[in-house]
Amino acid sequence: MNEYLLPIEILIDQFRKLPGVGRKTAARYAMAVLDMTDESARAFSESIAAAKKDIHRCPVCNNFTDGELCPVCLDENRLPVICVVEDVRALLNIEKVRDYRGRYHVLGGVLSPIKGIGPEKLGIDRLTKRIASEGITEVIVATNPTVEGDATAMYIMRALSPSGVKVTRLALGIPVGADIEYADELTLARAIKSRGIME
Amino acid sequence: MNEYLLPIEILIDQFRKLPGVGRKTAARYAMAVLDMTDESARAFSESIAAAKKDIHRCPVCNNFTDGELCPVCLDENRLPVICVVEDVRALLNIEKVRDYRGRYHVLGGVLSPIKGIGPEKLGIDRLTKRIASEGITEVIVATNPTVEGDATAMYIMRALSPSGVKVTRLALGIPVGADIEYADELTLARAIKSRGIME
Repeated sequence: MNEYLLPIEILIDQFRKLPGVGRKTAARYAMAVLDMTDESARAFSESIAAAKKDIHRCPVCNNFTDGELCPVCLDENRLPVICVVEDVRALLNIEKVRDYRGRYHVLGGVLSPIKGIGPEKLGIDRLTKRIASEGITEVIVATNPTVEGDATAMYIMRALSPSGVKVTRLALGIPVGADIEYADELTLARAIKSRGIME
Repeated sequence: MNEYLLPIEILIDQFRKLPGVGRKTAARYAMAVLDMTDESARAFSESIAAAKKDIHRCPVCNNFTDGELCPVCLDENRLPVICVVEDVRALLNIEKVRDYRGRYHVLGGVLSPIKGIGPEKLGIDRLTKRIASEGITEVIVATNPTVEGDATAMYIMRALSPSGVKVTRLALGIPVGADIEYADELTLARAIKSRGIME
């Protein structure tokens, strides 16, 4: 017996498609599924099919939605500000901050020539069109402070430049409650550079 | 928008049932599923249902099987030795070692009073019966060298004691190719205690 039986191998291969899941983790997940009750396994299987069937992308902002437009785009009280995020997880985290009552644009990734992700895949042309059609006064770029996130932010800034809209980016610095002793050098350098006058 | 739409929340909850998966990882997996093509998501969903439908436990050794008995129990050339493992992943890893040509008993876990896993759940009574019915000459206990694995090994040794069968356990020591400089204290202590005469 050199390997798992075929249905198990197929299941392992499917789990390997999830982000950050290697063969060993996938095998662990597959074992867990096989140890579930029939009912639990059916619920798991059906939840994948159901979510995929009921959920699609909002044609305006690319957020997930089960209707035509997403809950945020349907909300008429949203300010004419767009926050650009990499994915829906970031959107939900920003929604927790009651200070922000604007709209969103979900890129669904970052620019990556290696992975073949260009501006068209991120819907940046759609974002550009929204500036005029929605009378947007500010675009807050909230891509992650990584090499790819920075490059994507720069690209968006340039793409929006002809529209004359104000483009801002989330501040970088020491996280609230963090210990400066353990802050990394780059963060510390940014925090010093962007220091503000105490009020 | 405070949380994900219901079908996404349900999907996240399902992924959280997998071992070691918290809410953040589960959300990441759910996003990945929603970003799959319809075809890929269907294949994923169906692989769970198919594996669960086609695969069950071998009534003799508790290994996975798609037939009545598992491939190992069907193999008539297996020696009358039983290797007791915690799960099928361990079984497959031992199968890679061509030196072992015996049978298995898959516990499907370890004794854990907290999780309510007692000897009956691990099929230890079934293991005891196999000793006589299969004319077993040796039981090699290959539970993990952890607190729970050690306790389970001790329990099995005592449970098999009346049968008079020889019960052994995998040797503990420095892994082949490892650097003694980085070996942990417990492993080193075991390796010294179990040192052997050079031949």
